[in-house]
Amino acid sequence: MRVAYLGPAGTHSGEALRASAPEGAEQVPYPTIYDAVMAVQERAADRAVVPIENALEGGVAVTLDTLVLEAVDVRIGAELVHPIHHCLIAAEPTPLERVERVVSHPQAIAQCARFLRRRLPSAEHVSAPSTADAVASLGDAGPTTAALGSRLAAELYGGELIAADVEDHPDNATRFVWLVPAAEAAEPEGAAKTTIVFWGAGDEAPGWLVDVLGELSSREVNMTRIESRPRRIRLGHYMFVADIDGPASRPPVREALEALGSHVEEVRVLGSYGAFTT
Amino acid sequence: MRVAYLGPAGTHSGEALRASAPEGAEQVPYPTIYDAVMAVQERAADRAVVPIENALEGGVAVTLDTLVLEAVDVRIGAELVHPIHHCLIAAEPTPLERVERVVSHPQAIAQCARFLRRRLPSAEHVSAPSTADAVASLGDAGPTTAALGSRLAAELYGGELIAADVEDHPDNATRFVWLVPAAEAAEPEGAAKTTIVFWGAGDEAPGWLVDVLGELSSREVNMTRIESRPRRIRLGHYMFVADIDGPASRPPVREALEALGSHVEEVRVLGSYGAFTT
Repeated sequence: MRVAYLGPAGTHSGEALRASAPEGAEQVPYPTIYDAVMAVQERAADRAVVPIENALEGGVAVTLDTLVLEAVDVRIGAELVHPIHHCLIAAEPTPLERVERVVSHPQAIAQCARFLRRRLPSAEHVSAPSTADAVASLGDAGPTTAALGSRLAAELYGGELIAADVEDHPDNATRFVWLVPAAEAAEPEGAAKTTIVFWGAGDEAPGWLVDVLGELSSREVNMTRIESRPRRIRLGHYMFVADIDGPASRPPVREALEALGSHVEEVRVLGSYGAFTT
Repeated sequence: MRVAYLGPAGTHSGEALRASAPEGAEQVPYPTIYDAVMAVQERAADRAVVPIENALEGGVAVTLDTLVLEAVDVRIGAELVHPIHHCLIAAEPTPLERVERVVSHPQAIAQCARFLRRRLPSAEHVSAPSTADAVASLGDAGPTTAALGSRLAAELYGGELIAADVEDHPDNATRFVWLVPAAEAAEPEGAAKTTIVFWGAGDEAPGWLVDVLGELSSREVNMTRIESRPRRIRLGHYMFVADIDGPASRPPVREALEALGSHVEEVRVLGSYGAFTT
Protein backbone atom coordinates (compact mmCIF):
# COMPACT_ATOMS: atom_id res chain seq x y z
CA MET A 1 0.00 0.00 0.00
CA ARG A 2 1.46 3.34 -1.12
CA VAL A 3 0.53 6.21 1.21
CA ALA A 4 1.03 9.80 0.02
CA TYR A 5 1.84 12.58 2.49
CA LEU A 6 3.35 16.05 2.62
CA GLY A 7 7.05 15.31 2.73
CA PRO A 8 9.90 15.12 3.16
CA ALA A 9 10.52 12.94 6.25
CA GLY A 10 10.03 14.86 9.49
CA THR A 11 6.78 16.70 8.71
CA HIS A 12 3.82 16.53 11.10
CA SER A 13 1.94 14.71 8.32
CA GLY A 14 4.72 12.11 8.29
CA GLU A 15 4.41 11.73 12.07
CA ALA A 16 0.63 11.27 11.80
CA LEU A 17 1.14 8.72 9.05
CA ARG A 18 3.65 6.74 11.10
CA ALA A 19 1.32 6.85 14.11
CA SER A 20 -1.45 5.16 12.15
CA ALA A 21 0.00 3.29 9.16
CA PRO A 22 -0.59 -0.45 8.86
CA GLU A 23 2.50 -2.62 8.73
CA GLY A 24 4.25 -2.66 5.37
CA ALA A 25 2.75 0.62 4.17
CA GLU A 26 5.12 2.47 1.86
CA GLN A 27 5.39 6.16 2.77
CA VAL A 28 5.54 8.31 -0.37
CA PRO A 29 6.43 11.98 0.19
CA TYR A 30 4.82 14.64 -2.04
CA PRO A 31 5.92 18.28 -2.30
CA THR A 32 2.50 19.80 -1.45
CA ILE A 33 -0.77 18.81 0.23
CA TYR A 34 -2.48 19.38 -3.12
CA ASP A 35 -0.18 16.85 -4.78
CA ALA A 36 -0.75 14.29 -2.01
CA VAL A 37 -4.54 14.53 -2.40
CA MET A 38 -4.35 14.40 -6.20
CA ALA A 39 -2.10 11.33 -6.04
CA VAL A 40 -5.10 9.38 -4.73
CA GLN A 41 -7.43 10.96 -7.30
CA GLU A 42 -5.04 9.90 -10.09
CA ARG A 43 -4.38 6.50 -8.48
CA ALA A 44 -0.65 7.14 -8.23
CA ALA A 45 -1.06 6.36 -4.51
CA ASP A 46 -3.46 4.04 -2.69
CA ARG A 47 -4.02 6.33 0.26
CA ALA A 48 -3.03 9.79 1.50
CA VAL A 49 -2.73 11.26 4.99
CA VAL A 50 -3.38 15.02 5.01
CA PRO A 51 -4.27 17.68 7.62
CA ILE A 52 -7.88 18.89 7.47
CA GLU A 53 -8.23 21.12 10.56
CA ASN A 54 -5.92 22.74 13.08
CA ALA A 55 -6.93 23.81 16.58
CA LEU A 56 -5.47 27.31 16.15
CA GLU A 57 -5.86 28.05 12.47
CA GLY A 58 -9.06 26.17 11.60
CA GLY A 59 -9.82 24.33 8.37
CA VAL A 60 -6.91 23.62 6.04
CA ALA A 61 -8.22 25.41 2.97
CA VAL A 62 -6.15 23.54 0.38
CA THR A 63 -7.34 20.15 1.66
CA LEU A 64 -11.03 21.13 1.70
CA ASP A 65 -10.92 22.95 -1.64
CA THR A 66 -9.04 20.14 -3.39
CA LEU A 67 -11.36 17.46 -2.00
CA VAL A 68 -14.50 19.31 -3.05
CA LEU A 69 -13.45 20.92 -6.33
CA GLU A 70 -10.87 18.60 -7.88
CA ALA A 71 -10.39 15.24 -6.17
CA VAL A 72 -14.03 14.22 -6.66
CA ASP A 73 -13.20 10.48 -6.65
CA VAL A 74 -11.54 10.61 -3.23
CA ARG A 75 -13.22 10.04 0.12
CA ILE A 76 -12.26 10.36 3.79
CA GLY A 77 -11.65 6.89 5.22
CA ALA A 78 -10.55 7.65 8.79
CA GLU A 79 -9.42 10.50 11.02
CA LEU A 80 -6.64 10.94 13.52
CA VAL A 81 -5.95 13.79 15.94
CA HIS A 82 -2.25 14.42 16.43
CA PRO A 83 -0.66 16.94 18.85
CA ILE A 84 1.41 19.60 17.11
CA HIS A 85 4.47 21.20 18.68
CA HIS A 86 6.73 23.57 16.80
CA CYS A 87 10.34 24.30 17.70
CA LEU A 88 12.54 27.11 16.51
CA ILE A 89 15.56 25.40 14.97
CA ALA A 90 18.82 26.78 13.62
CA ALA A 91 21.85 25.24 11.93
CA GLU A 92 23.95 25.98 15.01
CA PRO A 93 23.29 27.25 18.55
CA THR A 94 22.07 30.83 18.03
CA PRO A 95 20.72 33.39 20.52
CA LEU A 96 17.07 34.19 19.79
CA GLU A 97 17.83 37.87 19.33
CA ARG A 98 20.17 37.15 16.41
CA VAL A 99 17.43 35.50 14.32
CA GLU A 100 16.49 37.69 11.35
CA ARG A 101 14.57 35.24 9.15
CA VAL A 102 12.08 32.54 10.11
CA VAL A 103 11.32 29.95 7.46
CA SER A 104 8.48 27.41 7.65
CA HIS A 105 5.18 26.25 6.19
CA PRO A 106 2.67 29.16 6.36
CA GLN A 107 0.41 27.09 8.68
CA ALA A 108 3.26 26.70 11.18
CA ILE A 109 4.07 30.41 10.99
CA ALA A 110 0.38 31.21 11.67
CA GLN A 111 0.24 28.76 14.59
CA CYS A 112 3.19 30.57 16.19
CA ALA A 113 2.04 34.10 15.28
CA ARG A 114 1.97 35.39 18.85
CA PHE A 115 5.42 34.01 19.70
CA LEU A 116 6.86 35.53 16.54
CA ARG A 117 5.26 38.92 17.20
CA ARG A 118 6.47 39.04 20.79
CA ARG A 119 9.90 37.49 20.62
CA LEU A 120 10.99 38.10 17.01
CA PRO A 121 9.06 41.23 16.01
CA SER A 122 11.43 42.27 13.25
CA ALA A 123 12.24 38.87 11.76
CA GLU A 124 11.03 38.33 8.20
CA HIS A 125 8.90 35.27 7.42
CA VAL A 126 9.78 33.00 4.52
CA SER A 127 7.43 30.25 3.40
CA ALA A 128 8.69 26.73 2.77
CA PRO A 129 6.74 23.86 1.17
CA SER A 130 6.70 22.04 4.53
CA THR A 131 8.12 22.36 8.04
CA ALA A 132 10.61 19.58 7.28
CA ASP A 133 11.74 21.32 4.09
CA ALA A 134 12.30 24.43 6.19
CA VAL A 135 14.53 22.58 8.65
CA ALA A 136 16.35 20.71 5.88
CA SER A 137 17.14 24.04 4.17
CA LEU A 138 19.01 25.43 7.20
CA GLY A 139 22.32 23.94 6.08
CA ASP A 140 22.40 26.34 3.13
CA ALA A 141 21.13 29.32 5.11
CA GLY A 142 23.15 31.80 7.13
CA PRO A 143 23.38 31.70 10.94
CA THR A 144 20.62 34.32 11.30
CA THR A 145 17.99 32.06 9.72
CA ALA A 146 15.84 29.74 11.83
CA ALA A 147 13.08 27.29 10.94
CA LEU A 148 9.85 26.30 12.67
CA GLY A 149 9.59 22.52 12.65
CA SER A 150 9.31 19.35 14.68
CA ARG A 151 11.88 17.88 17.06
CA LEU A 152 12.06 14.92 14.70
CA ALA A 153 13.00 17.21 11.80
CA ALA A 154 15.77 18.76 13.93
CA GLU A 155 17.14 15.26 14.59
CA LEU A 156 16.82 14.10 10.99
CA TYR A 157 18.47 17.16 9.46
CA GLY A 158 20.91 18.01 12.22
CA GLY A 159 19.45 21.29 13.51
CA GLU A 160 19.79 22.87 16.96
CA LEU A 161 16.69 23.68 19.03
CA ILE A 162 16.86 27.32 20.04
CA ALA A 163 13.28 27.50 21.44
CA ALA A 164 10.92 24.58 22.05
CA ASP A 165 7.12 24.37 21.84
CA VAL A 166 6.57 27.89 20.60
CA GLU A 167 3.04 27.28 19.24
CA ASP A 168 0.46 29.80 20.48
CA HIS A 169 -1.35 27.27 22.69
CA PRO A 170 -0.04 24.11 24.42
CA ASP A 171 -3.12 22.12 23.31
CA ASN A 172 -2.33 22.72 19.66
CA ALA A 173 -3.38 19.70 17.61
CA THR A 174 -4.26 18.87 14.03
CA ARG A 175 -6.95 16.57 12.75
CA PHE A 176 -5.55 14.46 9.90
CA VAL A 177 -7.61 12.30 7.55
CA TRP A 178 -6.78 9.14 5.65
CA LEU A 179 -8.00 9.54 2.07
CA VAL A 180 -9.10 6.56 -0.05
CA PRO A 181 -10.32 6.19 -3.64
CA ALA A 182 -14.14 6.45 -3.70
CA ALA A 183 -14.31 3.00 -5.32
CA GLU A 184 -12.69 1.49 -2.22
CA ALA A 185 -14.45 3.63 0.38
CA ALA A 186 -16.41 1.25 2.57
CA GLU A 187 -18.36 2.74 5.44
CA PRO A 188 -16.83 1.06 8.48
CA GLU A 189 -19.04 -0.71 11.02
CA GLY A 190 -20.22 1.93 13.44
CA ALA A 191 -18.65 4.85 11.57
CA ALA A 192 -18.70 7.65 14.13
CA LYS A 193 -18.75 10.64 11.86
CA THR A 194 -19.83 11.81 8.39
CA THR A 195 -18.39 14.81 6.59
CA ILE A 196 -20.61 16.46 4.01
CA VAL A 197 -20.37 19.49 1.71
CA PHE A 198 -23.37 21.35 0.33
CA TRP A 199 -24.21 24.60 -1.41
CA GLY A 200 -27.23 26.48 -2.69
CA ALA A 201 -27.99 27.64 -6.24
CA GLY A 202 -26.95 31.20 -5.38
CA ASP A 203 -30.41 32.69 -4.86
CA GLU A 204 -30.99 31.53 -1.29
CA ALA A 205 -33.90 33.08 0.60
CA PRO A 206 -33.53 34.45 4.13
CA GLY A 207 -33.34 31.57 6.56
CA TRP A 208 -32.10 29.08 3.94
CA LEU A 209 -29.18 27.86 6.04
CA VAL A 210 -31.44 27.50 9.08
CA ASP A 211 -33.87 25.39 7.01
CA VAL A 212 -31.01 23.22 5.80
CA LEU A 213 -29.54 22.70 9.26
CA GLY A 214 -33.02 22.17 10.68
CA GLU A 215 -33.24 18.94 8.65
CA LEU A 216 -30.41 17.68 10.84
CA SER A 217 -31.51 18.99 14.22
CA SER A 218 -35.18 18.00 13.79
CA ARG A 219 -33.91 14.40 13.42
CA GLU A 220 -31.56 14.76 16.42
CA VAL A 221 -28.55 14.53 14.13
CA ASN A 222 -25.71 16.34 15.88
CA MET A 223 -23.52 18.68 13.82
CA THR A 224 -20.13 19.06 15.48
CA ARG A 225 -18.64 21.56 13.07
CA ILE A 226 -19.57 23.75 10.12
CA GLU A 227 -17.25 25.80 7.98
CA SER A 228 -18.05 28.04 5.05
CA ARG A 229 -15.62 28.22 2.14
CA PRO A 230 -15.88 30.40 -0.96
CA ARG A 231 -17.11 28.53 -4.03
CA ARG A 232 -14.31 30.36 -5.88
CA ILE A 233 -16.86 31.94 -8.23
CA ARG A 234 -17.41 35.38 -6.73
CA LEU A 235 -18.00 37.07 -3.38
CA GLY A 236 -21.11 35.89 -1.59
CA HIS A 237 -21.17 32.32 -2.95
CA TYR A 238 -20.24 29.76 -0.32
CA MET A 239 -20.07 26.06 0.17
CA PHE A 240 -20.53 24.59 3.64
CA VAL A 241 -18.46 21.72 4.96
CA ALA A 242 -20.07 20.07 8.00
CA ASP A 243 -19.18 17.18 10.30
CA ILE A 244 -22.14 15.25 11.68
CA ASP A 245 -22.32 12.36 14.13
CA GLY A 246 -23.19 8.93 12.74
CA PRO A 247 -22.88 6.94 9.50
CA ALA A 248 -24.39 8.29 6.26
CA SER A 249 -26.00 4.99 5.24
CA ARG A 250 -28.17 4.58 8.34
CA PRO A 251 -31.12 6.49 9.74
CA PRO A 252 -31.36 9.16 11.01
CA VAL A 253 -28.41 10.59 9.04
CA ARG A 254 -29.62 8.99 5.80
CA GLU A 255 -33.07 10.59 6.06
CA ALA A 256 -31.61 13.93 7.11
CA LEU A 257 -29.32 13.99 4.05
CA GLU A 258 -32.22 13.07 1.74
CA ALA A 259 -34.33 15.88 3.19
CA LEU A 260 -31.40 18.29 3.04
CA GLY A 261 -31.04 17.47 -0.67
CA SER A 262 -34.33 19.20 -1.44
CA HIS A 263 -32.97 22.57 -0.20
CA VAL A 264 -29.58 22.64 -1.91
CA GLU A 265 -28.10 22.60 -5.36
CA GLU A 266 -25.62 19.95 -4.35
CA VAL A 267 -24.87 17.83 -1.33
CA ARG A 268 -22.03 15.33 -1.31
CA VAL A 269 -20.80 12.91 1.34
CA LEU A 270 -17.02 13.27 1.64
CA GLY A 271 -16.86 10.21 3.87
CA SER A 272 -18.30 8.25 6.78
CA TYR A 273 -15.49 7.13 9.03
CA GLY A 274 -14.14 6.36 12.44
CA ALA A 275 -11.23 7.65 14.46
CA PHE A 276 -7.86 6.00 14.88
CA THR A 277 -7.17 5.64 18.56
CA THR A 278 -3.49 6.22 19.16
CA MET B 1 -7.45 61.81 10.18
CA ARG B 2 -4.70 59.18 10.24
CA VAL B 3 -5.71 55.98 8.40
CA ALA B 4 -3.67 52.81 8.96
CA TYR B 5 -3.32 50.22 6.18
CA LEU B 6 -1.08 47.34 5.13
CA GLY B 7 1.74 49.13 3.35
CA PRO B 8 3.90 50.12 1.68
CA ALA B 9 2.33 52.13 -1.16
CA GLY B 10 0.99 49.93 -3.94
CA THR B 11 -0.84 47.29 -1.88
CA HIS B 12 -4.44 46.40 -2.63
CA SER B 13 -5.27 47.78 0.83
CA GLY B 14 -3.71 51.08 -0.23
CA GLU B 15 -5.82 51.07 -3.40
CA ALA B 16 -8.99 50.41 -1.38
CA LEU B 17 -8.06 53.20 0.99
CA ARG B 18 -7.50 55.68 -1.83
CA ALA B 19 -10.80 54.65 -3.42
CA SER B 20 -12.72 55.57 -0.29
CA ALA B 21 -10.71 58.02 1.82
CA PRO B 22 -12.15 61.42 2.63
CA GLU B 23 -10.16 64.43 1.50
CA GLY B 24 -7.17 65.24 3.66
CA ALA B 25 -6.88 61.74 5.16
CA GLU B 26 -3.29 60.86 5.99
CA GLN B 27 -2.39 57.36 4.78
CA VAL B 28 -0.17 55.59 7.32
CA PRO B 29 1.41 52.31 6.15
CA TYR B 30 1.86 49.48 8.67
CA PRO B 31 3.99 46.35 8.13
CA THR B 32 1.19 43.82 8.85
CA ILE B 33 -2.60 43.69 8.94
CA TYR B 34 -2.33 42.88 12.65
CA ASP B 35 -0.39 46.10 13.24
CA ALA B 36 -2.90 48.15 11.23
CA VAL B 37 -5.82 46.84 13.32
CA MET B 38 -3.96 47.30 16.60
CA ALA B 39 -3.04 50.87 15.63
CA VAL B 40 -6.74 51.76 16.02
CA GLN B 41 -7.03 49.75 19.25
CA GLU B 42 -4.08 51.67 20.68
CA ARG B 43 -5.27 54.98 19.21
CA ALA B 44 -2.09 55.46 17.22
CA ALA B 45 -4.36 55.81 14.18
CA ASP B 46 -7.90 57.17 13.85
CA ARG B 47 -9.04 54.61 11.32
CA ALA B 48 -7.76 51.50 9.51
CA VAL B 49 -8.67 49.93 6.19
CA VAL B 50 -8.12 46.15 6.20
CA PRO B 51 -9.27 43.16 4.10
CA ILE B 52 -11.86 40.96 5.80
CA GLU B 53 -12.92 38.51 3.06
CA ASN B 54 -11.67 37.45 -0.35
CA ALA B 55 -13.81 35.87 -3.07
CA LEU B 56 -11.34 33.00 -3.62
CA GLU B 57 -9.75 32.47 -0.21
CA GLY B 58 -12.60 33.38 2.15
CA GLY B 59 -12.29 35.13 5.48
CA VAL B 60 -9.00 36.85 6.27
CA ALA B 61 -8.15 34.99 9.46
CA VAL B 62 -5.78 37.56 10.94
CA THR B 63 -8.37 40.35 10.60
CA LEU B 64 -11.19 38.32 12.19
CA ASP B 65 -9.01 36.88 14.96
CA THR B 66 -7.46 40.24 15.85
CA LEU B 67 -10.84 42.01 15.89
CA VAL B 68 -12.43 39.38 18.13
CA LEU B 69 -9.57 38.41 20.42
CA GLU B 70 -7.38 41.50 20.78
CA ALA B 71 -8.78 44.70 19.29
CA VAL B 72 -11.88 44.65 21.47
CA ASP B 73 -12.32 48.43 21.37
CA VAL B 74 -12.45 48.54 17.57
CA ARG B 75 -15.60 48.37 15.41
CA ILE B 76 -16.38 48.05 11.72
CA GLY B 77 -17.55 51.42 10.42
CA ALA B 78 -18.06 50.76 6.70
CA GLU B 79 -17.28 48.22 4.00
CA LEU B 80 -15.98 48.44 0.48
CA VAL B 81 -15.66 45.74 -2.20
CA HIS B 82 -12.59 46.21 -4.37
CA PRO B 83 -11.64 44.11 -7.44
CA ILE B 84 -8.31 42.31 -7.06
CA HIS B 85 -6.00 41.57 -9.97
CA HIS B 86 -2.55 40.11 -9.53
CA CYS B 87 0.28 40.42 -12.05
CA LEU B 88 3.51 38.48 -12.20
CA ILE B 89 6.23 41.12 -12.10
CA ALA B 90 10.00 40.86 -12.52
CA ALA B 91 12.85 43.35 -12.31
CA GLU B 92 13.42 43.04 -16.06
CA PRO B 93 11.61 41.36 -18.99
CA THR B 94 11.89 37.63 -18.23
CA PRO B 95 10.35 34.63 -20.00
CA LEU B 96 7.88 32.84 -17.73
CA GLU B 97 9.81 29.57 -17.94
CA ARG B 98 12.89 31.18 -16.38
CA VAL B 99 11.07 32.11 -13.16
CA GLU B 100 12.31 29.96 -10.26
CA ARG B 101 10.99 31.88 -7.23
CA VAL B 102 7.67 33.65 -6.74
CA VAL B 103 7.48 36.08 -3.86
CA SER B 104 4.27 37.66 -2.52
CA HIS B 105 1.83 37.90 0.36
CA PRO B 106 0.51 34.38 1.17
CA GLN B 107 -3.06 35.51 0.30
CA ALA B 108 -1.94 36.53 -3.19
CA ILE B 109 -0.07 33.24 -3.66
CA ALA B 110 -3.24 31.34 -2.62
CA GLN B 111 -5.43 33.42 -4.96
CA CYS B 112 -3.16 32.46 -7.88
CA ALA B 113 -2.66 28.82 -6.82
CA ARG B 114 -4.00 27.31 -10.02
CA PHE B 115 -1.91 29.58 -12.26
CA LEU B 116 1.22 28.80 -10.24
CA ARG B 117 0.56 25.03 -10.34
CA ARG B 118 -0.04 25.02 -14.08
CA ARG B 119 2.46 27.52 -15.38
CA LEU B 120 5.21 27.52 -12.74
CA PRO B 121 4.98 24.05 -11.21
CA SER B 122 8.56 23.96 -9.94
CA ALA B 123 8.90 27.55 -8.74
CA GLU B 124 9.36 27.97 -4.99
CA HIS B 125 7.05 30.32 -3.10
CA VAL B 126 8.44 32.95 -0.76
CA SER B 127 6.18 34.97 1.51
CA ALA B 128 6.46 38.73 1.76
CA PRO B 129 4.75 41.02 4.27
CA SER B 130 2.61 42.48 1.45
CA THR B 131 2.30 42.35 -2.33
CA ALA B 132 3.89 45.78 -2.60
CA ASP B 133 6.83 44.70 -0.43
CA ALA B 134 7.26 41.74 -2.76
CA VAL B 135 7.44 43.97 -5.84
CA ALA B 136 9.68 46.50 -4.08
CA SER B 137 12.12 43.69 -3.19
CA LEU B 138 12.70 42.68 -6.83
CA GLY B 139 15.54 45.16 -7.24
CA ASP B 140 17.68 43.12 -4.86
CA ALA B 141 16.60 39.75 -6.27
CA GLY B 142 18.09 37.84 -9.15
CA PRO B 143 16.49 37.74 -12.61
CA THR B 144 14.79 34.38 -11.87
CA THR B 145 12.65 35.88 -9.07
CA ALA B 146 9.19 37.31 -9.79
CA ALA B 147 6.57 38.89 -7.53
CA LEU B 148 2.77 38.76 -7.51
CA GLY B 149 1.46 42.27 -7.10
CA SER B 150 -0.65 45.07 -8.53
CA ARG B 151 -0.02 47.05 -11.73
CA LEU B 152 0.34 50.09 -9.49
CA ALA B 153 3.14 48.40 -7.53
CA ALA B 154 4.92 47.58 -10.81
CA GLU B 155 4.75 51.27 -11.76
CA LEU B 156 5.78 52.56 -8.34
CA TYR B 157 8.78 50.24 -7.96
CA GLY B 158 9.79 49.93 -11.62
CA GLY B 159 8.94 46.28 -12.31
CA GLU B 160 8.11 44.63 -15.63
CA LEU B 161 4.79 42.79 -16.11
CA ILE B 162 5.56 39.29 -17.34
CA ALA B 163 1.98 37.96 -16.95
CA ALA B 164 -1.14 40.01 -16.19
CA ASP B 165 -4.29 39.11 -14.24
CA VAL B 166 -3.15 35.67 -13.13
CA GLU B 167 -5.66 35.33 -10.25
CA ASP B 168 -7.65 32.07 -10.36
CA HIS B 169 -10.92 33.78 -11.29
CA PRO B 170 -11.55 37.06 -13.19
CA ASP B 171 -14.22 38.14 -10.65
CA ASN B 172 -11.70 38.04 -7.82
CA ALA B 173 -12.53 40.76 -5.30
CA THR B 174 -11.86 41.55 -1.65
CA ARG B 175 -14.20 43.05 0.88
CA PHE B 176 -12.35 45.69 2.91
CA VAL B 177 -13.62 47.30 6.10
CA TRP B 178 -12.99 50.68 7.64
CA LEU B 179 -12.26 50.23 11.32
CA VAL B 180 -13.08 52.88 13.91
CA PRO B 181 -12.56 53.15 17.68
CA ALA B 182 -15.64 51.79 19.48
CA ALA B 183 -16.06 55.14 21.24
CA GLU B 184 -16.59 56.82 17.85
CA ALA B 185 -18.64 54.07 16.21
CA ALA B 186 -22.00 55.58 15.37
CA GLU B 187 -24.52 53.37 13.63
CA PRO B 188 -25.14 55.21 10.36
CA GLU B 189 -28.68 56.03 9.28
CA GLY B 190 -30.02 52.99 7.48
CA ALA B 191 -26.95 50.81 8.17
CA ALA B 192 -27.33 47.95 5.72
CA LYS B 193 -25.43 45.26 7.56
CA THR B 194 -24.39 44.09 11.02
CA THR B 195 -21.47 41.78 11.73
CA ILE B 196 -21.64 39.74 14.92
CA VAL B 197 -19.49 37.13 16.60
CA PHE B 198 -20.81 34.57 19.08
CA TRP B 199 -19.75 31.36 20.77
CA GLY B 200 -21.12 28.76 23.15
CA ALA B 201 -19.79 27.71 26.54
CA GLY B 202 -18.26 24.56 25.05
CA ASP B 203 -20.94 22.08 26.06
CA GLU B 204 -23.41 22.74 23.25
CA ALA B 205 -26.24 20.25 22.81
CA PRO B 206 -27.11 18.79 19.39
CA GLY B 207 -28.96 21.40 17.38
CA TRP B 208 -27.47 24.31 19.32
CA LEU B 209 -26.36 26.22 16.22
CA VAL B 210 -29.76 25.66 14.61
CA ASP B 211 -31.47 27.08 17.70
CA VAL B 212 -29.17 30.10 17.62
CA LEU B 213 -29.69 30.78 13.92
CA GLY B 214 -33.42 30.12 14.31
CA GLU B 215 -33.63 33.27 16.44
CA LEU B 216 -32.64 35.17 13.32
CA SER B 217 -34.74 33.33 10.71
CA SER B 218 -37.89 33.23 12.86
CA ARG B 219 -37.74 37.03 12.85
CA GLU B 220 -37.04 37.19 9.10
CA VAL B 221 -33.54 38.47 9.77
CA ASN B 222 -31.41 37.46 6.78
CA MET B 223 -27.95 36.06 7.43
CA THR B 224 -25.77 36.56 4.37
CA ARG B 225 -22.66 34.82 5.63
CA ILE B 226 -21.44 32.67 8.49
CA GLU B 227 -17.90 31.58 9.17
CA SER B 228 -16.55 29.42 11.95
CA ARG B 229 -13.12 30.18 13.38
CA PRO B 230 -11.26 28.27 16.08
CA ARG B 231 -11.42 29.91 19.49
CA ARG B 232 -7.68 29.15 19.69
CA ILE B 233 -8.24 27.06 22.83
CA ARG B 234 -8.38 23.50 21.51
CA LEU B 235 -9.92 21.47 18.70
CA GLY B 236 -13.72 21.54 18.63
CA HIS B 237 -14.19 25.02 20.14
CA TYR B 238 -15.39 27.54 17.59
CA MET B 239 -16.59 31.09 17.36
CA PHE B 240 -18.99 32.07 14.60
CA VAL B 241 -18.73 35.32 12.69
CA ALA B 242 -21.97 36.19 10.88
CA ASP B 243 -23.15 39.02 8.65
CA ILE B 244 -26.83 39.87 8.93
CA ASP B 245 -28.97 42.39 7.06
CA GLY B 246 -30.09 45.50 8.95
CA PRO B 247 -28.93 47.72 11.81
CA ALA B 248 -28.30 46.24 15.27
CA SER B 249 -30.15 48.98 17.16
CA ARG B 250 -33.51 48.48 15.44
CA PRO B 251 -36.05 45.69 15.45
CA PRO B 252 -36.05 42.98 14.20
CA VAL B 253 -32.25 42.64 14.49
CA ARG B 254 -32.23 44.06 18.01
CA GLU B 255 -34.79 41.49 19.25
CA ALA B 256 -33.04 38.67 17.43
CA LEU B 257 -29.71 39.53 19.09
CA GLU B 258 -31.35 39.71 22.51
CA ALA B 259 -32.94 36.29 21.99
CA LEU B 260 -29.70 34.89 20.61
CA GLY B 261 -27.94 36.04 23.77
CA SER B 262 -29.82 33.47 25.84
CA HIS B 263 -28.25 30.58 23.87
CA VAL B 264 -24.62 31.64 23.82
CA GLU B 265 -21.78 32.39 26.19
CA GLU B 266 -20.96 35.58 24.37
CA VAL B 267 -22.35 37.60 21.49
CA ARG B 268 -20.74 40.81 20.36
CA VAL B 269 -21.64 43.29 17.63
CA LEU B 270 -18.51 44.04 15.58
CA GLY B 271 -20.32 46.84 13.77
CA SER B 272 -23.44 48.06 11.99
CA TYR B 273 -22.46 49.79 8.80
CA GLY B 274 -23.11 50.64 5.21
CA ALA B 275 -21.20 50.14 1.98
CA PHE B 276 -19.09 52.68 0.18
CA THR B 277 -20.33 52.98 -3.36
CA THR B 278 -17.36 53.50 -5.65
